[in-house]
Amino acid sequence: MSAADQMPGSLADMHADLALGRLLNPRSVAVIGASDDALRIGGRPIAYMRSQGFSGRLMPVNPNRTQIQGLPAFASVAALPETPDVAIVAVAAHLAPQVVADLGARGTPAAIVFSAGFAEMGEDGERLQRRMVEAARAHGVRLLGPNSLGVLNPRIGFYGSFSSVVEMGFPKPGRVGIASQSGAYGSHILGIAREFGIGVSSCVMSGNECDISLGDLVQAFVNDGDTDVIAVYSEGIRDGARLLEALEAARLARKPVVMMKVGTSAVGSAAAQSHTASIAGNDAVTDAVLAEFGVVRARSTEHMLDVARLATRRIYPADNSLGVITVSGGAGVIVSDAAELAGLPMPEMPAAAQRHLKALIPFAAPRNPVDCTAQFMNDLSIAGRFAEAVVAEGGYRSVLGFFTYTVGAESIADGLRAQLKAVRDKHPDRLFVLSILASRERVQQYEADGFTVFEDPARAVVAIEAMGRFGRAFARRPAQEPPRVPAVALPGATPSEAEAKRVLAEAGIAVAPERACANARDAVAAAEALGFPVVLKILSPDIVHKSEMGGVLLNVANAGAVREGFALLMERAALATPDARIEGVLVAKQLSGGVECILGIQRDPVFGPVAMFGLGGIFVEVMKDVVLRRCPFGEDVAEQMIRGIQGAPLLLGARGKPVADVKALAAMLSRLSVFAHQAGPRLQSIDLNPVLALPQGQGAFAADAVVVLSSASDPAQG
Amino acid sequence: MSAADQMPGSLADMHADLALGRLLNPRSVAVIGASDDALRIGGRPIAYMRSQGFSGRLMPVNPNRTQIQGLPAFASVAALPETPDVAIVAVAAHLAPQVVADLGARGTPAAIVFSAGFAEMGEDGERLQRRMVEAARAHGVRLLGPNSLGVLNPRIGFYGSFSSVVEMGFPKPGRVGIASQSGAYGSHILGIAREFGIGVSSCVMSGNECDISLGDLVQAFVNDGDTDVIAVYSEGIRDGARLLEALEAARLARKPVVMMKVGTSAVGSAAAQSHTASIAGNDAVTDAVLAEFGVVRARSTEHMLDVARLATRRIYPADNSLGVITVSGGAGVIVSDAAELAGLPMPEMPAAAQRHLKALIPFAAPRNPVDCTAQFMNDLSIAGRFAEAVVAEGGYRSVLGFFTYTVGAESIADGLRAQLKAVRDKHPDRLFVLSILASRERVQQYEADGFTVFEDPARAVVAIEAMGRFGRAFARRPAQEPPRVPAVALPGATPSEAEAKRVLAEAGIAVAPERACANARDAVAAAEALGFPVVLKILSPDIVHKSEMGGVLLNVANAGAVREGFALLMERAALATPDARIEGVLVAKQLSGGVECILGIQRDPVFGPVAMFGLGGIFVEVMKDVVLRRCPFGEDVAEQMIRGIQGAPLLLGARGKPVADVKALAAMLSRLSVFAHQAGPRLQSIDLNPVLALPQGQGAFAADAVVVLSSASDPAQG
Repeated sequence: MSAADQMPGSLADMHADLALGRLLNPRSVAVIGASDDALRIGGRPIAYMRSQGFSGRLMPVNPNRTQIQGLPAFASVAALPETPDVAIVAVAAHLAPQVVADLGARGTPAAIVFSAGFAEMGEDGERLQRRMVEAARAHGVRLLGPNSLGVLNPRIGFYGSFSSVVEMGFPKPGRVGIASQSGAYGSHILGIAREFGIGVSSCVMSGNECDISLGDLVQAFVNDGDTDVIAVYSEGIRDGARLLEALEAARLARKPVVMMKVGTSAVGSAAAQSHTASIAGNDAVTDAVLAEFGVVRARSTEHMLDVARLATRRIYPADNSLGVITVSGGAGVIVSDAAELAGLPMPEMPAAAQRHLKALIPFAAPRNPVDCTAQFMNDLSIAGRFAEAVVAEGGYRSVLGFFTYTVGAESIADGLRAQLKAVRDKHPDRLFVLSILASRERVQQYEADGFTVFEDPARAVVAIEAMGRFGRAFARRPAQEPPRVPAVALPGATPSEAEAKRVLAEAGIAVAPERACANARDAVAAAEALGFPVVLKILSPDIVHKSEMGGVLLNVANAGAVREGFALLMERAALATPDARIEGVLVAKQLSGGVECILGIQRDPVFGPVAMFGLGGIFVEVMKDVVLRRCPFGEDVAEQMIRGIQGAPLLLGARGKPVADVKALAAMLSRLSVFAHQAGPRLQSIDLNPVLALPQGQGAFAADAVVVLSSASDPAQG
Repeated sequence: MSAADQMPGSLADMHADLALGRLLNPRSVAVIGASDDALRIGGRPIAYMRSQGFSGRLMPVNPNRTQIQGLPAFASVAALPETPDVAIVAVAAHLAPQVVADLGARGTPAAIVFSAGFAEMGEDGERLQRRMVEAARAHGVRLLGPNSLGVLNPRIGFYGSFSSVVEMGFPKPGRVGIASQSGAYGSHILGIAREFGIGVSSCVMSGNECDISLGDLVQAFVNDGDTDVIAVYSEGIRDGARLLEALEAARLARKPVVMMKVGTSAVGSAAAQSHTASIAGNDAVTDAVLAEFGVVRARSTEHMLDVARLATRRIYPADNSLGVITVSGGAGVIVSDAAELAGLPMPEMPAAAQRHLKALIPFAAPRNPVDCTAQFMNDLSIAGRFAEAVVAEGGYRSVLGFFTYTVGAESIADGLRAQLKAVRDKHPDRLFVLSILASRERVQQYEADGFTVFEDPARAVVAIEAMGRFGRAFARRPAQEPPRVPAVALPGATPSEAEAKRVLAEAGIAVAPERACANARDAVAAAEALGFPVVLKILSPDIVHKSEMGGVLLNVANAGAVREGFALLMERAALATPDARIEGVLVAKQLSGGVECILGIQRDPVFGPVAMFGLGGIFVEVMKDVVLRRCPFGEDVAEQMIRGIQGAPLLLGARGKPVADVKALAAMLSRLSVFAHQAGPRLQSIDLNPVLALPQGQGAFAADAVVVLSSASDPAQG
């Protein structure tokens, strides 16, 4: 048992946080397997750190040398003159577990394992990795990797990495923390970030994640005083719960997270699996979960870095709106198109402000986009007055100025800059973005003045919209508590429809009035009690898809038809599935006049039970018009989900239909989410299909229910 | 009447082509309103051309000077020593018509009008513009502009432009022709093209398009021997027919066209209208029309330039497929995701090839993406052997290599380049793209070797997919001839339902069996003849939306109900629209068992009649699941349309429904398209809603028809 294991919970957390803090900001680093050759894995980090002046102590370990790259070398971990904050392990895989044990014995808080040849290489490697993890756990060492390209912190010159991307230029220190599961792609991102002029607090590549996971790294950046913005590249989330905890911590700390989660396609997620043996999960679920935590999901590397770069301005307007000042009508159109696509509002300028601008330039287009025309080149104060009007009178939270190559003309460059800077300085709470084409030096001047510069105005709009999403996530009040749902004992195995409905009814989920009947006489009596017409359904724990075998009879109108129907169902069941246990038929009231919906639960391997809502039939099967949400949630969230589907107008009175009982539907959906959450990992899925949403005030009822459980005796699922 | 007007058609075309050819490649240029000040509109083109060594003769015209910027100046157009191929008009707007007349008198084929103050400035300007156009027409001068930023042809140093974008660097000569309606945004694009290293044949900004339109410019690039690829930026298409002719010419000449048409959003198209007073048209129609001609519609400036840049390789594989070689599993996933999203197939490597690669590197992932792992850095021949296997054994038409920053490592850079170049040289017919991070020099080396380089692998995939779309457009065989449809005389005004159906029936469009009945007795007789149940519909030329006033009764089951229904409809009509002319009721057979569809025609102001197909009801109204196509077209195209909607499975037997009579539906749709085409501009719209597609072999019938015509006497529509 390690020291950390013996601590109470909060102390253990603190210990973990400390180790992760050291990993990003070590005061001393040992390199185990250090090489004098600056091109070898064990030589590169030393060469990089020496060239960049690592601020801490650097201690090469190599039994065969007394000096490595001009530094005194030590024969072993035991021989180190002090305990390093971080050790880099660059030895052959089979030696790594012992090295980790030695490091643990010295009390080293964190180790970066460069070595490959572990879980990514099959069963033998997996065994070796397990041994290394055991050694680490026994001594409380946190491990990054194995098969990791390491950690880079340009602020203190810490290059615990052998990524040669730095040979194109070392990263610039700054406020964006980068966490990547892929070493090569993480380095690619780092290279592009440098080209984009993005400053980095630290960049960490997590490799095989035998211990430190993506969630740990996000938490480390939440704790890191040098990081304002967190950029994450993921191929497969392994630590769902830990990641969500860290994302919530980031939200509360007002640190925006932008995440590129790849493997969205069938081929892509197959490639992700063959690559990292990770669980790709369901992409739509990932979308829903990230949105829930206010994470902006990036669709490309450039998108991620655009958002991260703008986010370093730390202006996140929850009530985001865009005012545009442009010297080209064409650019105004591009921006308007992009804003509509992104869902970023561009309200018109107030009428008085429009009159005022028209007075300045009669041919200006003053609505928004505000086109000051090329006229400003004759009188630069026009640019300033137009910009001030957009900001002050328009009141937009975000302002985009399109000045394209005009800023580069020597005759106007400095004057224009002064005009714009004066407006910028007067309104420090607004987000200011410029779309210009200019030399690197001039762009840097504008950046220093507090403008973020994008060449492509459409890319600027996408990034600006993301700032509002962060703002809304940060401002979000806690949602309604999920409803209390009685704890229900699950059956030992997948239940019949009747049993499934009974269980759901216990949890307060409304099912259509119905009775299980073992014979035709009972069925007639039940039908007469419920009132005609009724539905007859075969009742068997062994028949899940009843309608496929003709096991459902609709609109059964009288006693005679019930008798005939009972016989028919018995006959069909005997033919279709001779071995099935037949318990009789379910007699249910035929509901009518409602809108058919589907409510479902699927167990996601990463994020646990996820609820789905959609309209019935073709809407789900053909149009894929559904919304997903992690369980559990309250009625407010459920109602947002229901109103969020594309077909929602059908529930809200479109085409002359009555407005459906959305409140009842929302209550059912949120209760279902709580039920699924409480049911634990044995619950595989639930399908309530159809659920009939009756007109307002009349409720919503599940007409069919399928609950799939893994067997109670299956320990893997228990 | 001008000289050109007196020529026979083909000669006039040739004359026009010659003038446009001169516009791009003048041998001599006069600048009217030339200035000695290199910063003024009339001075800039002279300064630019002198600095870049214009290959032709440059003749400034200015009555007050004998020398301009060191060149001999001439007092007037009449005083010019030779007739210029192109004249630049940089005088005040009110002087321009006379200058154009003078140029015409000298036989100048083309003039570029920089001057602003025409149609973009209101009615007075519009009048002035008309006068200038008349002067040009009278003498056969082709006009670019007014309000145009002009023409740039870097190959011959022709800078007929005052765009200061060149002060950031002059464009590189090359094979991409750029046509832009916006001067400022066209220059912005030119600036970004230079940064991307894209060579330009010519860049033309069309301004107000009083004469030379976007279609003319596309045709000029089709004719231009120096242009291989055409990039177009449009804010509003004015010359639908001319543009489509030019696009078809481009397709036949195998010159790919990539077009950014902005104004897609409601706000954006409002901004476009206020900007250029052009007709924005319906964006979905634009999408459909551009796709029909194989034009790739770019969604951003970068997208347009990515596609144009790759297209200069002139490899357009109609049977496009993508093989990927990568050193990072992560990048492989990104590429797979992007390929699935773009619809670019990535078939697996053949099993034998996979075995062969596994033999080279046991831990390689050989399926596709083919991951050769970082192992290749130890033995560069592995990169070459893997690449050769992907190309030769995989047989992919396009190959993407992700080598990221590894190409920059000095120890491997030259060796890797030699390996890849050998494979590239061996397979000149394949499209080779690299995703690398490297210095500008190294990227240029790879480009010279025949690779196109993208930093972002996802952007590379999008561009690669576009090459296949060009290839398929170039390879396309002529579609089926549209069916012959008898010429039908249109009624004098919008017809009643019965008359509309009669007209459509004449054109061979199947309507549901029905009869017009003036009184209840006739209605009962008709219903008995057609067979119950029937539908009763109010019959009036003045009531277009019958169901909104309760004017449609469904499932009328017997003679008594017909009588009651007749009376009820008369009553409702009298109440709802007392002034309407009531002709009686339509009695139609109630069709059942079919799938409800909508077939429609809308007259697009730019492209003429456009056919729409969708499923009935919610699918169109809520889900917007429709497909559009310019009229006329044959049954093959109609069937593709029908099968192309998202809800198509409902017609093809989904959810246990019978397969619908798609052939009959396609026949109806294509006949409708021919009818609409023949009907001419008086036809505003047609709605066949619903059309019932019965099960296979049973046909498809329009149950309702609304045909909207502009009045025969309205000359504006005639």
